Amino acid sequence: MMEILLILAHPDQSSLNHAIAMAVRQALEHEGHRVIFHDLYLEAFDPILPVREIPRDGLLDPVIARHCSELIRVDGIIIVHPNWWGQPPAILTGWIDRVIRPGVAYRFVGDDSGEGVPEGLLKARTALVINTSNTREERENQVFGDPLERIWRDCVFGLCGVHEFHRSIFRIVVTSTPEQRATWIKEACDLAVRIF
Amino acid sequence: MMEILLILAHPDQSSLNHAIAMAVRQALEHEGHRVIFHDLYLEAFDPILPVREIPRDGLLDPVIARHCSELIRVDGIIIVHPNWWGQPPAILTGWIDRVIRPGVAYRFVGDDSGEGVPEGLLKARTALVINTSNTREERENQVFGDPLERIWRDCVFGLCGVHEFHRSIFRIVVTSTPEQRATWIKEACDLAVRIF
Repeated sequence: MMEILLILAHPDQSSLNHAIAMAVRQALEHEGHRVIFHDLYLEAFDPILPVREIPRDGLLDPVIARHCSELIRVDGIIIVHPNWWGQPPAILTGWIDRVIRPGVAYRFVGDDSGEGVPEGLLKARTALVINTSNTREERENQVFGDPLERIWRDCVFGLCGVHEFHRSIFRIVVTSTPEQRATWIKEACDLAVRIF
Repeated sequence: MMEILLILAHPDQSSLNHAIAMAVRQALEHEGHRVIFHDLYLEAFDPILPVREIPRDGLLDPVIARHCSELIRVDGIIIVHPNWWGQPPAILTGWIDRVIRPGVAYRFVGDDSGEGVPEGLLKARTALVINTSNTREERENQVFGDPLERIWRDCVFGLCGVHEFHRSIFRIVVTSTPEQRATWIKEACDLAVRIF
């Protein structure tokens, strides 16, 4: 039994993102895992990092403190969100800004001034990012350079020592059929069950 | 005389980011330009894109409608923010999510389903992004891949047809001296005055 953190960021409760998150949660629970689930929009997560939370020992909002305590103890992390402008929706960008904290998820070795070499502190070794997109793969890679890949794999999870990184991208959502979406949901579940 | 939109996203009023934005504003006004300035933190900009704003003809919050009307009419755009996780702070990510709208900043040509080829609609042809960072250049480029470059240059401004793209990165802020910061502020002003 593993404990898995599942974070969803999409405004529409009837979206493919929601359907994927619900199905993945159920599939993992069916396997006997414990899933800690956050629908950031539904919970009205506040993504604005305030000045007082910038210092390592800054006073944390209780909601943020709970997110941090979950993040450090889980065995795996799953993030589900649409690709908006090569980034996550702002509500999830702010979850990164506020929850992936120094002293919680990483620390700087050797040099405490903030420009040292980062060292990961999380228990989790495996992360899965599931994205939806309305941009064709060739266009995403050639014109936009798919910044989401670097953001999650290198900037966030790599820095925090979560080196087994998986990512699924389902596209083109806007013109997809119900059958295609059902296949994507099954693919997401199969992948989550296989890696955790 | 040009009209320049200047967007600042940093929580700390005493930050280098604030000092840069203030100085750039003053330098441009000194040159006779008109600067429309938004300090997103000070204005408590709400970065959460709601479901109702997703459709092209969705009902807009008056604040968002005003941001959109400014964005389409200005001659140039300047964005000032720290590099957090290879992304802008969430408050600015949400400004992108809500203000860079279809039908305002871009439209899809040929195929209206949302997977067509985007065409820019902005009057502005020039953008300047000014970033601060606590990561050394070699580490940013080799380990993290500097996703901010692709986000602003290709995903946002390229898609909106703003093809004269400039970017300044000032680093390492956390260990910098007052003299170094003064030099950076002057560099930012000189660049802004030169390109607009």
